[in-house]
Amino acid sequence: MNYMDQALEAARAAAEQGEVPVGALIVSPDRQVLAVSGNRTLGLKDPTAHAEMLVIREACQKLDNERLVGCDLFVTLEPCAMCAAAISFARLSRLYFGAEDPKGGAVENGPRFFQSPTCHHAPEIYGQIGEEESKTLLRSFFAARRL
Amino acid sequence: MNYMDQALEAARAAAEQGEVPVGALIVSPDRQVLAVSGNRTLGLKDPTAHAEMLVIREACQKLDNERLVGCDLFVTLEPCAMCAAAISFARLSRLYFGAEDPKGGAVENGPRFFQSPTCHHAPEIYGQIGEEESKTLLRSFFAARRL
Repeated sequence: MNYMDQALEAARAAAEQGEVPVGALIVSPDRQVLAVSGNRTLGLKDPTAHAEMLVIREACQKLDNERLVGCDLFVTLEPCAMCAAAISFARLSRLYFGAEDPKGGAVENGPRFFQSPTCHHAPEIYGQIGEEESKTLLRSFFAARRL
Repeated sequence: MNYMDQALEAARAAAEQGEVPVGALIVSPDRQVLAVSGNRTLGLKDPTAHAEMLVIREACQKLDNERLVGCDLFVTLEPCAMCAAAISFARLSRLYFGAEDPKGGAVENGPRFFQSPTCHHAPEIYGQIGEEESKTLLRSFFAARRL
């Protein structure tokens, strides 16, 4: 299973727990999966527990380093401003994301954080990876909530 | 000691541990201090461990709720994009900050997150509280590092 498929699987598992279905994964320079997680804001009662934040924190613990130089992050949805800034602070090398998020995203939308003069490290960015599957997951999750 | 003075004390304690001297505190609607912390990115080896993030997470655990409605956050430096977005997600009511941060701030500088159309909750904002003491702390910390 490729990295984005693993992130999508984490998103699906999050939805089953009633969490917004977003999943993320970090891979090391030697292609080891360091961390994979879905959103857990409700489960952990922590508004900062987006999938990206959880994998960044876990990967840092695993490498015993507050920087993830050479590591790549895969996430099923465009990161928000919180996660984009955390990606920058962690010095991640590449960001692969799925669906765009016009309402809350901060990469292609809103604050476009990586293009801000106050952003001091930007990863290489690859969007629309596994986009359709990510969108379908989010749509059916929110559709079910509106019933 | 007022809330910002307590946050400044946490900033000073952070500097003694070699951390960038920023401190934060959250107070509940009934004026109880729920959490106070300095930056701990190096100590915890966690790039997300800014003072604001740590107090938000601690206060949420204390209230057993992922939202901090009615609570106020005091921080000695203008929050970055990560922390500004987390403040928004946590639904904090008021943000009091010390020194502006032209290099990394996201409230008055850079992405001005709370004014972004992708920001769905903004606190009331009060800047320049304890500003001089916060600036002095940061200046002497970075001056010592450059020796």
